[in-house]
Amino acid sequence: MDKGVFVSAFSNGDIFVGETLGTAALILLGGGVCAAVTLKKSKAINAGWLAITFGWGFAVMIAAYMSASKSGAHLNPAVTLALAVKSGEWGDVPLYLGSQMLGAMIGAVLVWATYLGQFQENEEPTLGIFSTGPEIRNPIQNMLTEIIGTFVLCFAILTQAGNEGLGKSGLGILIVAFTVVGIGLSLGGPTGYAINPVRDLGPRIVHSLLPIPNKGGSDWSYAWIPVTGPLVGGLLAGGLYNIVF
Amino acid sequence: MDKGVFVSAFSNGDIFVGETLGTAALILLGGGVCAAVTLKKSKAINAGWLAITFGWGFAVMIAAYMSASKSGAHLNPAVTLALAVKSGEWGDVPLYLGSQMLGAMIGAVLVWATYLGQFQENEEPTLGIFSTGPEIRNPIQNMLTEIIGTFVLCFAILTQAGNEGLGKSGLGILIVAFTVVGIGLSLGGPTGYAINPVRDLGPRIVHSLLPIPNKGGSDWSYAWIPVTGPLVGGLLAGGLYNIVF
Amino acid sequence: MDKGVFVSAFSNGDIFVGETLGTAALILLGGGVCAAVTLKKSKAINAGWLAITFGWGFAVMIAAYMSASKSGAHLNPAVTLALAVKSGEWGDVPLYLGSQMLGAMIGAVLVWATYLGQFQENEEPTLGIFSTGPEIRNPIQNMLTEIIGTFVLCFAILTQAGNEGLGKSGLGILIVAFTVVGIGLSLGGPTGYAINPVRDLGPRIVHSLLPIPNKGGSDWSYAWIPVTGPLVGGLLAGGLYNIVF
Amino acid sequence: MDKGVFVSAFSNGDIFVGETLGTAALILLGGGVCAAVTLKKSKAINAGWLAITFGWGFAVMIAAYMSASKSGAHLNPAVTLALAVKSGEWGDVPLYLGSQMLGAMIGAVLVWATYLGQFQENEEPTLGIFSTGPEIRNPIQNMLTEIIGTFVLCFAILTQAGNEGLGKSGLGILIVAFTVVGIGLSLGGPTGYAINPVRDLGPRIVHSLLPIPNKGGSDWSYAWIPVTGPLVGGLLAGGLYNIVF
Repeated sequence: MDKGVFVSAFSNGDIFVGETLGTAALILLGGGVCAAVTLKKSKAINAGWLAITFGWGFAVMIAAYMSASKSGAHLNPAVTLALAVKSGEWGDVPLYLGSQMLGAMIGAVLVWATYLGQFQENEEPTLGIFSTGPEIRNPIQNMLTEIIGTFVLCFAILTQAGNEGLGKSGLGILIVAFTVVGIGLSLGGPTGYAINPVRDLGPRIVHSLLPIPNKGGSDWSYAWIPVTGPLVGGLLAGGLYNIVF
Repeated sequence: MDKGVFVSAFSNGDIFVGETLGTAALILLGGGVCAAVTLKKSKAINAGWLAITFGWGFAVMIAAYMSASKSGAHLNPAVTLALAVKSGEWGDVPLYLGSQMLGAMIGAVLVWATYLGQFQENEEPTLGIFSTGPEIRNPIQNMLTEIIGTFVLCFAILTQAGNEGLGKSGLGILIVAFTVVGIGLSLGGPTGYAINPVRDLGPRIVHSLLPIPNKGGSDWSYAWIPVTGPLVGGLLAGGLYNIVF
Repeated sequence: MDKGVFVSAFSNGDIFVGETLGTAALILLGGGVCAAVTLKKSKAINAGWLAITFGWGFAVMIAAYMSASKSGAHLNPAVTLALAVKSGEWGDVPLYLGSQMLGAMIGAVLVWATYLGQFQENEEPTLGIFSTGPEIRNPIQNMLTEIIGTFVLCFAILTQAGNEGLGKSGLGILIVAFTVVGIGLSLGGPTGYAINPVRDLGPRIVHSLLPIPNKGGSDWSYAWIPVTGPLVGGLLAGGLYNIVF
Repeated sequence: MDKGVFVSAFSNGDIFVGETLGTAALILLGGGVCAAVTLKKSKAINAGWLAITFGWGFAVMIAAYMSASKSGAHLNPAVTLALAVKSGEWGDVPLYLGSQMLGAMIGAVLVWATYLGQFQENEEPTLGIFSTGPEIRNPIQNMLTEIIGTFVLCFAILTQAGNEGLGKSGLGILIVAFTVVGIGLSLGGPTGYAINPVRDLGPRIVHSLLPIPNKGGSDWSYAWIPVTGPLVGGLLAGGLYNIVF
């Protein structure tokens, strides 16, 4: 994460490889835990919210260590925007976002491959394994919840990246992972905490394409909220960081 | 945390910003997990005591990394008192306490904003999302429990802050966070472990003011215990630390 | 923990203070989580085995950071014996064991104080909050289980103490804490993992003395197993360590 | 783990001792948590999937710290193959694999000893305590799931081993342990995540030999999948690592 501050220090090829690979791992593991606790004939069925939140946190941890030396492990357009606002360097932003989107779609396909048998016997809507959705559908409130959650994530990452000790000990990524667990536990109740545009949109596209029996709809009317909310949250975090620090 | 020892090393502006921002994040995330597991139409409903205790622990972690470089991340008047007893420097104490109180109230409003839809459909008492309350109402026993819990917290922080390695590796804050999880698991059963005066009083004031339907009373008759108990616990921890170390 | 290797480096007064204080904190928090999940009118009732194992793990973490600079944070006669076998220095062993026993009894009284209201309304046997007991009563098997569990604990501590990085980063104690969580999860099923003579005997004595209504018996016929089993396990771990390393 | 890169830096004796001892500890603790949550008259019965996944993770942590200085703590033929592909040095591979297999069988016997009383009263199939099995039996899909899970494990270890900070702070092993928890939570649902040939085959052999009443069959028709799938996953991870880094 610490290298994420120096966006321009990575080559284009490294950024592409790091973000694609890392985001694919993130979604494979994050979507995987949602599959594990909801699909029938999974050993983890009904393991509950703690399993989901720790599963997503360790997904971030594993994916970020894989890509940190290549691309700084953004893995999330909201994080990329927050870092761009902080540094004032926007040149690599499109490459980051494109690679993240590609990686997210690859990751969603890998979830399907890992749980192929379970998906083939599926009898219930499966969108919740791929993308988020609100418990109470109200665009303004749902947007607000996603903005707050993403703001906390991005502001936390920016402040943690400023901690010299975390950089030297190599454990800054673990702290980011536990931050994601904490955001899930505390702020994930209303909308399922997308807090990352590609984490939601990439798998939603894949969900709409995959041949899963009884898979249900892909809820495109909600899809713009977990994209725009996190982007706003990331921009606000970068802006406030520049004011305060 | 390690910088918390040198209270006077921070400017007044930094203390104000750090403690207000950090305590707001603490209460947003700590109150958030209580909302998540108790409100209807939350994905985390009934996630249980482990979710609450880890949620509060990670709330401390996130909030403390945000404010450590600004104000030493006290985020709790009991911690401020313990450090003042240890160092003998009391000049900044009022500024710390005022900023913490303001932050706690802001955080409680943010919980309400994050779970706005859920609160608007609320049908049951909601004080437990904002403030603590005893399972068995007995002022002397409840006070004793809060004193013991806060003493453990503050004495643990003081001894951990003396560990050079934790300071250098940047992970002292994670250890404090796990300390809070441990206190919750072990000592939180009788009163819900306020162990922090503003964590209880700030959200209680906000609860009394917010327009939540069917929100129930704010239980002002109990409010003095989670304020005075933690203050006594913090003072005792600072005093014993000076005797032993 | 790393300083535990140099037993003779601590003054007698420091050993006494460190081990008494640390073991009191260990039992307050460890017994506390058992009280939290079993007593009626506790917010943590039925929080389950994961709560108990993490609660004991964080109890070790908190207690060990409190006492590490004073006494090396043994907090357990089995650990003291393992370190004595390793180093060949036995002079301080009696002081360690006596201080640990005193601390364990103080900690058990503090559990009672923290949960005083719950204990006063108690209607069921409470020995399980203070001491361990077997699910299947068979002295040879119960002894074997305690020996294996304590061997893993002590051998793990000895090998971890040899890791330079853990010492420098200050996080060796966290790893020991997670080791205790792991032993509880994996080896705790048959006997409740005493793996520490004073953790079991000290609170058992206190249980027999406290005025708790309907408290039930203190099961003295089993008491020798969680004392002798861990001592044997600690001696074997120290011996094998000297052979292998 | 970091030393695992320099396979040839260990003596044959050290490799044998380290891998045998470490893998025995791994299976004792990993099999132990499966016994703990499934056997009747265990205090951990029904503790659930989170307990199993964290139990296996801490099993890796404890076992790896025990053996890191002796053999680099591979503890898994898939990891040994991935490191051999990376380094191009294959000379010690047979010694690693043989020692791991021996250790896994010793560990499985120790699970039986620890839970001896529970096993003697057993009335249900016990293979799940020793070895993995699929929820849906389909060789190609089961193989695919094991390949993906092991690929993530080995690729994660290789990238984490390249992080200088983790090596210096001594905490790389903890990150590997949490990686195993994450893989269990996210990818363990279909087959129970062997992701290690000896973790499955060694205990399966022991299961077929132990005198456990009503123990059920050892399901030899499935045994080849959790052996070959992880080997393929490890080879692929080593190969991709060489291409990308």
